[in-house]
Amino acid sequence: MSRPCDINIMPEPEQSNRPYEECGVVGVWGAEDASALAALGLHALQHRGQEAAGIVSHDRKRFYQHKGLGLVGEVFHDQRVMATLPGHTAIGHNRYATTGATLLRNVQPLYADYEFGGLAVAHNGNLTNAATLRQALVRRGCLFQSTTDTEVFVHLIAISLYASVLDRLIDAVKQVKGAYSLIALTADMMIGMRDPLGVRPLILGRMPRSGAWVLVSESCALDIIGADFVRDVDPGEIVVIEGDGIRSIKPFGETSPRFCVFEYIYFARPDSVLEGHSVYEARKHIGFELARESGVDADVIVPVPDSGVPSAMGYAVESGIPFEMGIIRNHYVGRTFIEPTDQIRNLGVRMKHSANRAVLEGKRVILVDDSIVRGTTSRKIVDMVRAAGAIEVHMRISSPPTRHPCFYGIDTPEESKLLAATHDLAGMAEAIGVDSLAFISFDGLYRALGHAGREEARGRYCDACFTGDYPIELVDKEGHLVIA
Amino acid sequence: MSRPCDINIMPEPEQSNRPYEECGVVGVWGAEDASALAALGLHALQHRGQEAAGIVSHDRKRFYQHKGLGLVGEVFHDQRVMATLPGHTAIGHNRYATTGATLLRNVQPLYADYEFGGLAVAHNGNLTNAATLRQALVRRGCLFQSTTDTEVFVHLIAISLYASVLDRLIDAVKQVKGAYSLIALTADMMIGMRDPLGVRPLILGRMPRSGAWVLVSESCALDIIGADFVRDVDPGEIVVIEGDGIRSIKPFGETSPRFCVFEYIYFARPDSVLEGHSVYEARKHIGFELARESGVDADVIVPVPDSGVPSAMGYAVESGIPFEMGIIRNHYVGRTFIEPTDQIRNLGVRMKHSANRAVLEGKRVILVDDSIVRGTTSRKIVDMVRAAGAIEVHMRISSPPTRHPCFYGIDTPEESKLLAATHDLAGMAEAIGVDSLAFISFDGLYRALGHAGREEARGRYCDACFTGDYPIELVDKEGHLVIA
Amino acid sequence: MSRPCDINIMPEPEQSNRPYEECGVVGVWGAEDASALAALGLHALQHRGQEAAGIVSHDRKRFYQHKGLGLVGEVFHDQRVMATLPGHTAIGHNRYATTGATLLRNVQPLYADYEFGGLAVAHNGNLTNAATLRQALVRRGCLFQSTTDTEVFVHLIAISLYASVLDRLIDAVKQVKGAYSLIALTADMMIGMRDPLGVRPLILGRMPRSGAWVLVSESCALDIIGADFVRDVDPGEIVVIEGDGIRSIKPFGETSPRFCVFEYIYFARPDSVLEGHSVYEARKHIGFELARESGVDADVIVPVPDSGVPSAMGYAVESGIPFEMGIIRNHYVGRTFIEPTDQIRNLGVRMKHSANRAVLEGKRVILVDDSIVRGTTSRKIVDMVRAAGAIEVHMRISSPPTRHPCFYGIDTPEESKLLAATHDLAGMAEAIGVDSLAFISFDGLYRALGHAGREEARGRYCDACFTGDYPIELVDKEGHLVIA
Amino acid sequence: MSRPCDINIMPEPEQSNRPYEECGVVGVWGAEDASALAALGLHALQHRGQEAAGIVSHDRKRFYQHKGLGLVGEVFHDQRVMATLPGHTAIGHNRYATTGATLLRNVQPLYADYEFGGLAVAHNGNLTNAATLRQALVRRGCLFQSTTDTEVFVHLIAISLYASVLDRLIDAVKQVKGAYSLIALTADMMIGMRDPLGVRPLILGRMPRSGAWVLVSESCALDIIGADFVRDVDPGEIVVIEGDGIRSIKPFGETSPRFCVFEYIYFARPDSVLEGHSVYEARKHIGFELARESGVDADVIVPVPDSGVPSAMGYAVESGIPFEMGIIRNHYVGRTFIEPTDQIRNLGVRMKHSANRAVLEGKRVILVDDSIVRGTTSRKIVDMVRAAGAIEVHMRISSPPTRHPCFYGIDTPEESKLLAATHDLAGMAEAIGVDSLAFISFDGLYRALGHAGREEARGRYCDACFTGDYPIELVDKEGHLVIA
Repeated sequence: MSRPCDINIMPEPEQSNRPYEECGVVGVWGAEDASALAALGLHALQHRGQEAAGIVSHDRKRFYQHKGLGLVGEVFHDQRVMATLPGHTAIGHNRYATTGATLLRNVQPLYADYEFGGLAVAHNGNLTNAATLRQALVRRGCLFQSTTDTEVFVHLIAISLYASVLDRLIDAVKQVKGAYSLIALTADMMIGMRDPLGVRPLILGRMPRSGAWVLVSESCALDIIGADFVRDVDPGEIVVIEGDGIRSIKPFGETSPRFCVFEYIYFARPDSVLEGHSVYEARKHIGFELARESGVDADVIVPVPDSGVPSAMGYAVESGIPFEMGIIRNHYVGRTFIEPTDQIRNLGVRMKHSANRAVLEGKRVILVDDSIVRGTTSRKIVDMVRAAGAIEVHMRISSPPTRHPCFYGIDTPEESKLLAATHDLAGMAEAIGVDSLAFISFDGLYRALGHAGREEARGRYCDACFTGDYPIELVDKEGHLVIA
Repeated sequence: MSRPCDINIMPEPEQSNRPYEECGVVGVWGAEDASALAALGLHALQHRGQEAAGIVSHDRKRFYQHKGLGLVGEVFHDQRVMATLPGHTAIGHNRYATTGATLLRNVQPLYADYEFGGLAVAHNGNLTNAATLRQALVRRGCLFQSTTDTEVFVHLIAISLYASVLDRLIDAVKQVKGAYSLIALTADMMIGMRDPLGVRPLILGRMPRSGAWVLVSESCALDIIGADFVRDVDPGEIVVIEGDGIRSIKPFGETSPRFCVFEYIYFARPDSVLEGHSVYEARKHIGFELARESGVDADVIVPVPDSGVPSAMGYAVESGIPFEMGIIRNHYVGRTFIEPTDQIRNLGVRMKHSANRAVLEGKRVILVDDSIVRGTTSRKIVDMVRAAGAIEVHMRISSPPTRHPCFYGIDTPEESKLLAATHDLAGMAEAIGVDSLAFISFDGLYRALGHAGREEARGRYCDACFTGDYPIELVDKEGHLVIA
Repeated sequence: MSRPCDINIMPEPEQSNRPYEECGVVGVWGAEDASALAALGLHALQHRGQEAAGIVSHDRKRFYQHKGLGLVGEVFHDQRVMATLPGHTAIGHNRYATTGATLLRNVQPLYADYEFGGLAVAHNGNLTNAATLRQALVRRGCLFQSTTDTEVFVHLIAISLYASVLDRLIDAVKQVKGAYSLIALTADMMIGMRDPLGVRPLILGRMPRSGAWVLVSESCALDIIGADFVRDVDPGEIVVIEGDGIRSIKPFGETSPRFCVFEYIYFARPDSVLEGHSVYEARKHIGFELARESGVDADVIVPVPDSGVPSAMGYAVESGIPFEMGIIRNHYVGRTFIEPTDQIRNLGVRMKHSANRAVLEGKRVILVDDSIVRGTTSRKIVDMVRAAGAIEVHMRISSPPTRHPCFYGIDTPEESKLLAATHDLAGMAEAIGVDSLAFISFDGLYRALGHAGREEARGRYCDACFTGDYPIELVDKEGHLVIA
Repeated sequence: MSRPCDINIMPEPEQSNRPYEECGVVGVWGAEDASALAALGLHALQHRGQEAAGIVSHDRKRFYQHKGLGLVGEVFHDQRVMATLPGHTAIGHNRYATTGATLLRNVQPLYADYEFGGLAVAHNGNLTNAATLRQALVRRGCLFQSTTDTEVFVHLIAISLYASVLDRLIDAVKQVKGAYSLIALTADMMIGMRDPLGVRPLILGRMPRSGAWVLVSESCALDIIGADFVRDVDPGEIVVIEGDGIRSIKPFGETSPRFCVFEYIYFARPDSVLEGHSVYEARKHIGFELARESGVDADVIVPVPDSGVPSAMGYAVESGIPFEMGIIRNHYVGRTFIEPTDQIRNLGVRMKHSANRAVLEGKRVILVDDSIVRGTTSRKIVDMVRAAGAIEVHMRISSPPTRHPCFYGIDTPEESKLLAATHDLAGMAEAIGVDSLAFISFDGLYRALGHAGREEARGRYCDACFTGDYPIELVDKEGHLVIA
């Protein structure tokens, strides 16, 4: 009885242009139930995007798509929906929307009918010359339907003068700059690609029985469907899967990688293995390093759940101070909730976290968290811990101070809103109300990743959010392009 | 709690190309509550399209849009929705979808961001070279988002090498062939246009107090908002409304009009006045002519409601036979209903019409209807009337036999499914089960419209559905373009 | 993905007590597809209640129910819904809610689990001692779930000391006073009943092939499913259908009937036959009488559609003045619509009706309508007709002046809001802005129904809304029961 | 545009009678924003019931209610909903439905209009003579609307011959047997009550500034709104809050308590304090005891998250074996998900848990979980851990073997489906595929709760699910009443 109704407010030019987002992508080629496997993979990557999800499948005759706002399990909620996505191949996408309302037309994969046939594209990351390219494309007569960077690829492929899809795609990726992994699907092939520096992850796997090929953002998405890990896709590599076979194209030749170090610190799931490192082990080793670098006498180590847990465990092991779950996270916090009055709104962070008074009262507490962004959440947690009776609160952070925005696909506030960009260490400690504050050092961070220290790791990672050293040209930003 | 979810099956190439449809359009410029006035106008035009409705407004800063599937009163159901459509100008569209599911992305007005700014387009009619143009545009790299003819305009405007919107629009309309009326909206102006032959109607009106300009498909949409009738837009004319003023452009020079005669017979609302003729009076005069041409002795004249009523009244007046409401229409028939078993499905037409036994039993009945298409509905009505006790049933039709499909915007079945294309008069009478059957003659029809007869009216109307004389080239059809 | 959510505001005591409403009821016993037949019957009775609909079925093992707000075609919209209502018997109800929001828990049929098994009840009408009985039942410990009169029956049956369902029902109906028809369903029988005066209609029919028994509010609901008319249920009669047979019980003995005359004037569908009279013919004869009693020189007779049409036709035939559709009704007016600002709200009645200027301009017009209640709608229509150019407007009404509220099941405003209760004829004419105004006389009304005049019809009809002569005791009202 | 539609299949008598469920209740008296505080409290108690939620409020004039299926944050999702719940007092309920579909009419609080005015009741627990009482009440003429035990209270209060609400409530609770906590609301007072043995928790708190009284199932619901803990309500105590004051009634005199030990082991949130014990500390001490009783040589201690975490931490501390998060829980698992084919269905438990290969591969692993019910989930987890490379898997359980169903409010399968009721320890170890299996002893369990051992704790707790020693008569069960 209910009919869909689409309320779209036209994108304000000021907002439509910076869709920083981190997302998850999945592709399956050559399996019965390809869409179901893709949906399961997206579910395992749910932490990379919770606002929307979509799948496009192909059954050797036509394309099918289903997209929706919400969690993967909500969008792909029953067999009737899955039955609309038949075929031996499917690609999917989780979206984490940051600007204004999540519009359904921005939900990926994007699909377009070309002269050569249909093509669907799912993309994780951010182009640094998207606005510049978009302006040129619009000037040329291209009509954009979404505000995603992905649509820039879609139009570049459409207007390319090359004949084959693959040549058109290479033509397109040679024009874009940015950090991205993408999965594309035509009637004949599935394509996976990482940007030339390999900033964002992309992993190739294979189903043991069916031999189906699988592309995923993180290895945890292989585990959920029982696929074997084959290898990380190389930086700048295009993997082409067609028929039963797979081939590799490197249009940029061999490139030196700069993998996003923040994936280890915060973004990836702890049971994932990225570029050969266990995320869980990396975090735990950061805890070891933190304890060595910034030890303080205390009664309990308490993680800010969930991402602070492994580092806090590492800290506890190294320091010998007991590890306790002094903060309980309420896992039922959804995307919306009651905010009836200012009085209630002040309850704020307590919707998500609550203090476990039994382990905090009368104690000197070391809180371990992954990062400090604006500092407001940290302040609320510290206040809550003190209200539960902690007599000292020390904060230890498993990343260096976040002083610069990410232009490569992770949503971060602008610099002026980053606490570490505007305060020194003492100022930050005061702002969040702790007795002491320490961040992991760069040497400590890279030792935890298996290097001798910062120097040895130099040029291997992107750590621009900590250093401001951006390895990919920020065309839109530097060109002072004020897109209206 | 409910989130929108969009299930789109990719358009099958075989289906995406022939969206014959009749629609209604409205535009308001220079009024407070422009969107509310547009919604009311769409409501008055509801008979032209019941599947979906949309409005785009502009408030001198931005565009706003709201679209939905359903009746106007359902899509624009409350003040909260209307509050999302502020501004002094608004254009709207009712859609009557014929092919497959009505997809939200096909609901008009279509909006696009161009280099020169935003443009919204609402369009009533059909292009006869849409498929040919679309193929060329796709080859050039244009990506289509909908399956509507309207989007052909949208892309032609985007790729035009002219600078101003108006020049680009003229560039576009010179490339298309077809029967259409369109209303477009930019940040600075509202544009109304009829195709060079003026097949589809478009009327200019003005609000008496505010001086706001109004464009509508039929005059009944002026009446509902209390706007004065100014004039019919001329065939091939572009009306440009900007600031407080209005100007006229005729890119095709003076053209000889061919107005759709079926608007008088069936499509338009009886209280509308089109091209100077009252639709109600036209129908009543057809009834006069029918009675003179095809009189038959009978006890009662019974219209097939609602469109047959005025002609039946005219027939009754002229013949002196009593007019009775022998068939009652159930106005609560919506778009969907119970069809549980074959047994129940046989009840068929009775969902919409019921026989009024009190005036039919033992009577010789003349049924008056507007047209016979497949003949199946007529058969069911005749059977129902006989079952209610009629001893003779004569059918009189207020149009000539429908022998050819319309390619100019009214949904009709293909020729092989038209009863009049495959049967002679006696065969038709037998097929629908009547004692006698007669259609209005061409002379009678055109006399009813104020002409001396067919000869005098020749070249003034499009009556291709009766004659097969198509005044606009059928490019896609004749080129044997097998996309549709 | 959407989950139901029930927002119920507790009934305000002041509001919960006067649910005047007219409704439609249907029962089918002994047919495959009983629920589908019931749904079709409800569809034919849609004019008796448009707010909600419900069906309870039984398949010799269990009861099933489905209820919803909206039209029958919306509540029973697809085969999946109908599949939840299996069985050989089903009863259904259309509801026309008048007080506040339509709560789902008020939608009938009401179902209850008794000691003796389940029982569902659907009821059309109004009890005049419902509040008094309810107060006593609550005092005894009965918990009411709805605010309907029907639930009084449900509790009276529950607490009856008799053993059999039938004895309990008789025990209950002996305690209630009011005007009602009801259909009840147990696992073993279907029961139909009319109140002792037979104020509200109830008709027995039978399917020609299956022999299934059918109970309906009006004969048009027999026609839609092809059932034969058997007879009107008698006033005060209980019809019991079980197995293949039917029997009649008259717990009140023979009673003298007082059928609601307003069913002929307004409420029933024109193609229905009630108590042996065709509703259509009755209305047309009222038109004859009106023309004789209150003739006036004029150019056109124009009905206020839809209910004024047959009387206007009768008036035209008798007077010889041409009948024209000078007012067009928009059948797409739903239950909600745009009311954005006071300015737009003034457009008021034009949402539903529009003037057909072609037949009104420069004319002396006689408008024929069924009744005048508050007078506000009449005023708007008269203004609209004058605005379309009528030079004189005369109003003729096919009922006597409505001066008293109905306490027997038809929703009417309280006396102080009835125009005829507070104004004399001249005052009414002035209030609605007509040049002359006349109502049918009582003699004329009853002549139209086949009597010699008012005197001969005395005591055969309920015409309390015109006369204030209430044939059934108004217990709640007269007891000045101020139920809190 | 969407209208609610209620598909209720009539309750099958066989199913309607055993609604074992654990729920959460909240009451607030004397606060602005009482409903918002109640909603926040329900959110903190979300782990006690995730299927539905409801709130009834009173503003000194009327009652208001809102109920819905889904999480608290979904049912009370915005300010518009909260605005429908004004007043200084509100009671709320979370529901965990176990039998069939969750029907909206079963969602609590239940509200009824009595002779003395309105009353709303929310109830957590289970009555052991509900079926017996219900049968008697139905025989007496009471009509049940839901299948909840709570409605038995509602009817007992309605038919009580006592005059005051409080006397009627006492009359009712003297007739019921079972384990329950309830909160009731009238226009004048809020009432909290625990069953005579205090099996289910109920806690009294107070807001520091406003002095508002608060009743909650667990102390974590006080923390979220910043209320102070006052005391546990006593077993068998009725707390009456009216005006500003509070008074206590003990209709059963002093009773010896039997608090549910499973609340400590599994049900309550770790940051709650119940009957003076921190749940977190209790679980951690069980871990200490487990390590002492059932130590085994291993490389890592891995909890089955989330409830196994504190016990695993305790085990690790006591044993000195490293604690590692070897199993990751996906917190985005909702109530529904893709289950397209048998092939995919085999992936089963991996939707919720995934193995962290980095800490499992090549290791001897001790898994710590809270209980084993059917054994199927344990088996899947063990298999997953082995598939991730564990070379030994030992399972330690922080409760005694679950051998008997709970009839006091926690949903458990019948005895024949409990692994521990049908297998000895060796058989269980084999069934779940571990190298060794051990449960906490009764002595260990009660030592962890601060007692010398089982003997000292005897008669203080209900541990019937482990011992079969049911402290409250199982009337329905023992009477062999076959309604359930």
